[in-house]
Amino acid sequence: MLRYFPAPLERLTEEFARLPGIGGKTAQRLAFHVLSLSDEEAAGFARAIVEAKQEVHTCPVCQNLTDRELCAICDDSRRDHSLICVVAEPRDVIAMERAREYDGVYHVLHGVISPLNHVGPDDIRIRELLSRVSQGGVREIIMATNPDTEGDATAMYISRLLRPMEVKVTRLAYGVPVGSQLEYSDEVTLLRALEGRREI
Amino acid sequence: MLRYFPAPLERLTEEFARLPGIGGKTAQRLAFHVLSLSDEEAAGFARAIVEAKQEVHTCPVCQNLTDRELCAICDDSRRDHSLICVVAEPRDVIAMERAREYDGVYHVLHGVISPLNHVGPDDIRIRELLSRVSQGGVREIIMATNPDTEGDATAMYISRLLRPMEVKVTRLAYGVPVGSQLEYSDEVTLLRALEGRREI
Repeated sequence: MLRYFPAPLERLTEEFARLPGIGGKTAQRLAFHVLSLSDEEAAGFARAIVEAKQEVHTCPVCQNLTDRELCAICDDSRRDHSLICVVAEPRDVIAMERAREYDGVYHVLHGVISPLNHVGPDDIRIRELLSRVSQGGVREIIMATNPDTEGDATAMYISRLLRPMEVKVTRLAYGVPVGSQLEYSDEVTLLRALEGRREI
Repeated sequence: MLRYFPAPLERLTEEFARLPGIGGKTAQRLAFHVLSLSDEEAAGFARAIVEAKQEVHTCPVCQNLTDRELCAICDDSRRDHSLICVVAEPRDVIAMERAREYDGVYHVLHGVISPLNHVGPDDIRIRELLSRVSQGGVREIIMATNPDTEGDATAMYISRLLRPMEVKVTRLAYGVPVGSQLEYSDEVTLLRALEGRREI
């Protein structure tokens, strides 16, 4: 009795099902889709997987993802290398760059400290940041982890470790988002916005 | 200014985004997941894509998917080759086989006629079914397309084409599903169940 699809199709379905957020039914649908591709398209997909894995690695300085020896930002002499913005994820670098204002460099932690998820200080790239700062030449470190419990705790933890190094440590301003409506702002955000008010 | 991830990662994200039902954010998450795989795991995933595409094809007799010359069911001499069950998709063959009762063979249409989706009679494997029946030796054809508008229309269309060939054409019985509750059955299903009632 036939209870399964051909073995190569089942294997591909299993591979898709291993991806995060992809259930069995979706995995099957994706595997069927691959069968409908041309040979070149399927080969291109397979090649993209292998090449992404082979060519993308972390920058030895800032830990951001790159396919070059040094990432484009660390390699840019026009940027201010004495100013380091610490973010949790590579996508946060892209968000910051979109603001078109920041001209310092970055440090990507690749996560935040999260006891609930068994992520401790040694599981993210804090050690690399400390050794980078201890080499000197750093004027200010901007903590730009997410403004949530884990992001705040991680920023506090790192700033405490940096204290003996006599470097200025700052945190992104809390406040009401530009373009948002006050009536929909939560109390904590409004409180922080009040505390951080400035003269105009 | 850095606005994108490294090129190989962007390319992989684009490949994932081309899959049906996978949006931009999900594609990015999947691409990042690939970076977290071991080299062997990434290579295995890529290989599964290429092999599924290379090794899986349709059975020349019943059009079901197989990685052998003839599919396991068409190649099984203990099955009744004079009885053909016509289904829309390969997954329907597996559903029928799970019932452990049917011992005939299959014909997979790979779709149903659907003018709204621009699928006409020539886009599904009707021609292959007609040529198979015209070769003789077929006693009965069971139409087992889905009991919905398009499935019914496709079954009607095919049965009309088969009429001159003097072969018995039947349709799966409509009725209330086993284990279901009458109060939740829709009127059309109940009507069909009444029409199809049998003496006990």
